[in-house]
Amino acid sequence: MYGAGDVRIETVPNPSIQQPTDAIVRIVAGCICGSDLWPFASRDATDEGSRMGHEFVGIVEELGSETSGLSIGDFVIAPFVASDGTCDFCTEGLQTSCRHGGHWGGTEDGGQAEFARVPQASGTLVVVPAGFDEKLIPSLLSLSDVMSTGYHAATKANILPGQTVTVIGDGAVGLSAVLSAKLKGASRIILMGRHEARTNLGREFGATDVVAERGAEGIAKVKELTGGDGTHVVLEAVGLRSAIEMAIGVVRDGGVISRVGAPQFSEVPLGFPEFMRNITLTGGVAPARAYIDELLPLVLDGSIEPGRVFDRTISLDDVPAGYQAMADRDALKVLVRP
Amino acid sequence: MYGAGDVRIETVPNPSIQQPTDAIVRIVAGCICGSDLWPFASRDATDEGSRMGHEFVGIVEELGSETSGLSIGDFVIAPFVASDGTCDFCTEGLQTSCRHGGHWGGTEDGGQAEFARVPQASGTLVVVPAGFDEKLIPSLLSLSDVMSTGYHAATKANILPGQTVTVIGDGAVGLSAVLSAKLKGASRIILMGRHEARTNLGREFGATDVVAERGAEGIAKVKELTGGDGTHVVLEAVGLRSAIEMAIGVVRDGGVISRVGAPQFSEVPLGFPEFMRNITLTGGVAPARAYIDELLPLVLDGSIEPGRVFDRTISLDDVPAGYQAMADRDALKVLVRP
Repeated sequence: MYGAGDVRIETVPNPSIQQPTDAIVRIVAGCICGSDLWPFASRDATDEGSRMGHEFVGIVEELGSETSGLSIGDFVIAPFVASDGTCDFCTEGLQTSCRHGGHWGGTEDGGQAEFARVPQASGTLVVVPAGFDEKLIPSLLSLSDVMSTGYHAATKANILPGQTVTVIGDGAVGLSAVLSAKLKGASRIILMGRHEARTNLGREFGATDVVAERGAEGIAKVKELTGGDGTHVVLEAVGLRSAIEMAIGVVRDGGVISRVGAPQFSEVPLGFPEFMRNITLTGGVAPARAYIDELLPLVLDGSIEPGRVFDRTISLDDVPAGYQAMADRDALKVLVRP
Repeated sequence: MYGAGDVRIETVPNPSIQQPTDAIVRIVAGCICGSDLWPFASRDATDEGSRMGHEFVGIVEELGSETSGLSIGDFVIAPFVASDGTCDFCTEGLQTSCRHGGHWGGTEDGGQAEFARVPQASGTLVVVPAGFDEKLIPSLLSLSDVMSTGYHAATKANILPGQTVTVIGDGAVGLSAVLSAKLKGASRIILMGRHEARTNLGREFGATDVVAERGAEGIAKVKELTGGDGTHVVLEAVGLRSAIEMAIGVVRDGGVISRVGAPQFSEVPLGFPEFMRNITLTGGVAPARAYIDELLPLVLDGSIEPGRVFDRTISLDDVPAGYQAMADRDALKVLVRP
């Protein structure tokens, strides 16, 4: 990506092992993330460009001398942050703050590509024990980010069985949050979104109600559905100030707003009125690695099918058009087969 | 209080039962709260004035026909919010959001007085089972607000044994938060405050370190004490924007800021950087009633002595001077014996 609206496919040298903790992975499937749309909309033009993509599954091609638990030929999931798996943050399940971690893309390899060098490979990669399975690719790929991100929202909110939940946003993360709230035992899941194909999938994932209205009208509608109180939990999967304001409007006193939409704002209106209501704001960037061990068995045994958020598959050459399709809301989430 | 700096002692009619759920309490001890200092500093002048005080212990003098669990002559603690004890919020321990609750003061009776009408008396008042005990008055009185408020901060932060905690503010609530963090098993408690008499009491309550610096210097000091990471938990007991900014600066990635200082601001800087660090903001006005059942036995058996935050006792006539003494930081917390 060279700037807003300017994504190009270029041939670069194949990656090679640089650190003994690296692996080289041949990418079987990558994808475009909702968060990629922020720079696609507004990034300044540059001469250098940034490699893109931070979600992929693939086959281990080469291993550094200090890797363990991985074999050439393993089918692996790469979470969207690299992590060593051994530091205190990793041990606590906050791999996004790993002391030796790193992010994909920029000058490092990205997931919208044929190959990637994976730093801290032993900590980062998760082997799919069942091996390669073509039909599981979308759901396995979703664990690298969107499904794990939705599950992070639900986990940080500490949803208790029987609680009521509002999910703000019908993108891939919002729909994953619906599925996650359902897994946590929420009794009622109100999905705020206005794209019918998406909210229909949300209903299949567990949404009991859909509210298409936004702003004050959306708040009024959720309150009406909940006897005036709002819901115990709000999962915010947009990242705009207007979404946080809706979250504050629809959360019940004593409730939790858990956000996983990357904030496009710097201040949150949590002053005296919200203090008097004991509102909690939690969430953040999801340590996807922390949740894959728990979610992978559910994908493998068919209990959940989070890969249904992918509604288009393209080749690498079509990636620029894939960005545009997602930006136009023409595609929900685009899977890339290099 | 008729406005900033204008507190007057006036004789008003004794209260009487207005609702069958009311009780009349003869106040044995009340006090001035740090939160009373905000209007004392800035309230607009009015002709009507507001009754003041929201913390007291006393003797039940009269009971409405629909009260239960209370007897004339009971020695009782009145938490700083009235609550029915039966609605869903009360059952969940969020009595501050009670569906039939209310606040002291204003046009209602206040605790800086000789008598008060207590609404929702059966839900609100807590009987001291040991009966009247002169020497326990300060600690029992502290349960009506400051100690319960500090404990709310620690509880909402979900402090786990062995975790590190920073407490911002060396007022009565901050010191109560130190004591509460100690009760929760914190291994290290860093108290940020600059009044030596207060921080000395903080050390007796369990603070392991005291940081007198503020702002960037204070943040640097706490980071230096914690290997660069900050603490797992921050209990914010001031309510100023600068205190919240310090809290964000000293909290460890993945950590929790629990605030109990009434916010004198409307926006909190929790944007993208804090999202990437998975910082949680929780806390709010404390449902003191929820914690008295747990803390009262500890006061009665001498395990804790939260009443040590009171460093001055005055008569009702001296209340205006008491406000000034607290505003001047000349007194930490003033106990009023009508």
